[in-house]
Amino acid sequence: MLKAEVMAIGDELLIGQVLNTNAQWLAQELNAIGITVVQMTTVPDQKLAIIDAVSAAFERVDFIFITGGLGPTKDDITKHTLCEYFETELILDEKRLEQLKRFFEERGLSVNPLNIGQAMRPKNCHNIENLKGTANGMWFENKAKKVLISMPGVPYEMKEMMIKSVIPKITTEYLGQPILHHTLRTFGTGESVIAEHIGDWEEALPPYFKLAYLPNVGQVRLRLTASHPNLKQLTNEMTLQVTQLTKLISNFLYTDKDEELEATVGALLLSKQASVATAESCTGGYIAHKLTSIPGSSAYFKGSVVAYSNQIKEQVLQVPKEVIKSKGAVSEETVKAMAQNVKKLYQTDYAISTSGVAGPDGGSQEKPVGTIWIAVAGPNGVLSKRILMGKDRSRNIHLGSLHGLNLLRKMLLNEPF
Amino acid sequence: MLKAEVMAIGDELLIGQVLNTNAQWLAQELNAIGITVVQMTTVPDQKLAIIDAVSAAFERVDFIFITGGLGPTKDDITKHTLCEYFETELILDEKRLEQLKRFFEERGLSVNPLNIGQAMRPKNCHNIENLKGTANGMWFENKAKKVLISMPGVPYEMKEMMIKSVIPKITTEYLGQPILHHTLRTFGTGESVIAEHIGDWEEALPPYFKLAYLPNVGQVRLRLTASHPNLKQLTNEMTLQVTQLTKLISNFLYTDKDEELEATVGALLLSKQASVATAESCTGGYIAHKLTSIPGSSAYFKGSVVAYSNQIKEQVLQVPKEVIKSKGAVSEETVKAMAQNVKKLYQTDYAISTSGVAGPDGGSQEKPVGTIWIAVAGPNGVLSKRILMGKDRSRNIHLGSLHGLNLLRKMLLNEPF
Repeated sequence: MLKAEVMAIGDELLIGQVLNTNAQWLAQELNAIGITVVQMTTVPDQKLAIIDAVSAAFERVDFIFITGGLGPTKDDITKHTLCEYFETELILDEKRLEQLKRFFEERGLSVNPLNIGQAMRPKNCHNIENLKGTANGMWFENKAKKVLISMPGVPYEMKEMMIKSVIPKITTEYLGQPILHHTLRTFGTGESVIAEHIGDWEEALPPYFKLAYLPNVGQVRLRLTASHPNLKQLTNEMTLQVTQLTKLISNFLYTDKDEELEATVGALLLSKQASVATAESCTGGYIAHKLTSIPGSSAYFKGSVVAYSNQIKEQVLQVPKEVIKSKGAVSEETVKAMAQNVKKLYQTDYAISTSGVAGPDGGSQEKPVGTIWIAVAGPNGVLSKRILMGKDRSRNIHLGSLHGLNLLRKMLLNEPF
Repeated sequence: MLKAEVMAIGDELLIGQVLNTNAQWLAQELNAIGITVVQMTTVPDQKLAIIDAVSAAFERVDFIFITGGLGPTKDDITKHTLCEYFETELILDEKRLEQLKRFFEERGLSVNPLNIGQAMRPKNCHNIENLKGTANGMWFENKAKKVLISMPGVPYEMKEMMIKSVIPKITTEYLGQPILHHTLRTFGTGESVIAEHIGDWEEALPPYFKLAYLPNVGQVRLRLTASHPNLKQLTNEMTLQVTQLTKLISNFLYTDKDEELEATVGALLLSKQASVATAESCTGGYIAHKLTSIPGSSAYFKGSVVAYSNQIKEQVLQVPKEVIKSKGAVSEETVKAMAQNVKKLYQTDYAISTSGVAGPDGGSQEKPVGTIWIAVAGPNGVLSKRILMGKDRSRNIHLGSLHGLNLLRKMLLNEPF
């Protein structure tokens, strides 16, 4: 079992200016290829701190993954420090210098001395190309053949390097046998309920399979990882296990791809050439935001009426005054009218509506904070559902929006609400 | 200068299941009271790993802040490990057991043996009360009078403990002199431009003042921290420095409180008893979402028309067909009509509108990806502005929404656009 330490270098992390999301991403990716992360460490931009941390890490692990400390202003310290640690020197990488000149020329800028420093690299390290920025990565080996990989701290530069260069090199040179992953996503129930549903199946998994539960607000991602010398057997077994798992969690599964709920719903609408609008009260436009966060969503999303005040519900969405008066703004009758009328007003095939008490105040005994009514209107009529959430406003807006999208998904697939 | 290490214990962090936001929060709070964080470390729920990490940390620092590893199922390992490390034993805390029994009874549950374990605490540690959960915190001192503080990993339990118990104890017993903070927030320019504007002032700050730049999308928070034995002098000097800083950055400053832009705008609307609506194309409802993320926003926010398709711009917002045909949906004329018409339709005092190319595709030479037109309508007419952003869709939606809110803020204050 190969072990790794994930290390971040940067004063900005230690004063809390920047949140270290790289460590979590690296941990997910490394665990996915079967490498165990045994420690995460963050150290300042200081030579001695870096050398101490690297020395200590090599006592524990086979791989050290370093992010950060390679910007043009901080570059010298990390690169010089690693040169000193690995007893080597910096040389000019002519090819890299040409690339950097082009990189700056394309942006209408000229290369300054700080940037030329970025074309210097340690003599005895393997170079990791950076297609998205100016600081290349470095792959060192110590005398015990343990590996240190140094990458920029900018997340999209680091991720590109990992996916394009580092992970392929590790899987080819160190793991020696193929690895497959498959991620399924569920909505509407917790880890423990899913674990109950799939307990027997999980117990019976072949020993070379691993299952990870990755929970988020309202959602749980289930990631299957397997590694075996025989690729054909591995592929067949993965297909079989995914099929079995899919059946066991069909009530909660929304996609067998690793994508957000709004992407799944968008793809369904696109495949049916259907359009959608939303009429949002308590979710305040967040469903519209989620739908439009997907590139190309203009092909199926026409727009929204955010009807925060009752005046807008009545005048723009034509919810009858007497319905709001007798049943309340947070009621089945109101959300049904909202969904049907925005569908008509925006001339769409489907519509989602919400009205609820997001909190933290404003609840009553009958309709406590966290109560939300949701309706979905479609070509065959309108369906609605009441959901009870907690007391946290931000979470209620987020979770209520996901429920709205999920109910539309169910209607699109003719599944029961 | 006191030094600290922030340590997290938990396998869930090392497989990437959970993002360690506690470390960033602790780093901000500790830096704010003048304690330097020199390392952050994450280790698994394993006795040897914990003891190694604690021993190494005490070589570097005066304070170790540990989060995590205190849940009812993992409780034994951390508590037993710390007992072993500090050469003490567990005793039953009768008072705590009574509290736990009440805690569960109030929730209609009975206490099980795992929970009784949570009433056990090390004999020679100072107990830190947990008002929000079942696992108390522990404050240990080693023979060299260095301190280890162990807290739960649940963020709101840990934060409550820090604010109510730990920080007051540290400031009283270790820092011995008052500390003041003041945070100002800016929008619309970067760290380096602000640094240029305030360079001379920053140079001339009294030696007991520290300034931190905390940047985020489009925003920079400036946090002043100062500590001095004489509270009166400290308070006067802070007021003076904040006044000077406020003048220097008045072009970018949006609040001298530490609050989001949508909270500042909301408070301004409330003070003027004015209402607002939005008409959003490329921001897709995100401005409405930001406004409604503030509790009580129904007092000034009436709603929104998200007009993602041109059909909605024409039919619902009454943007003349010929304007869209001749000038385009992304144009000054279109956003002005959108803002004026939603203001009329929703009967509000103010309105914000947006239309742009969020990306990643859809740009042209004349209107590249990242182009956004924004208009704000008010009692005295309508103003508009074109803004050029980058290529990243999610960032453009976020940044474009903030620009919209900021332009409304400027109109409310009669500041130039």
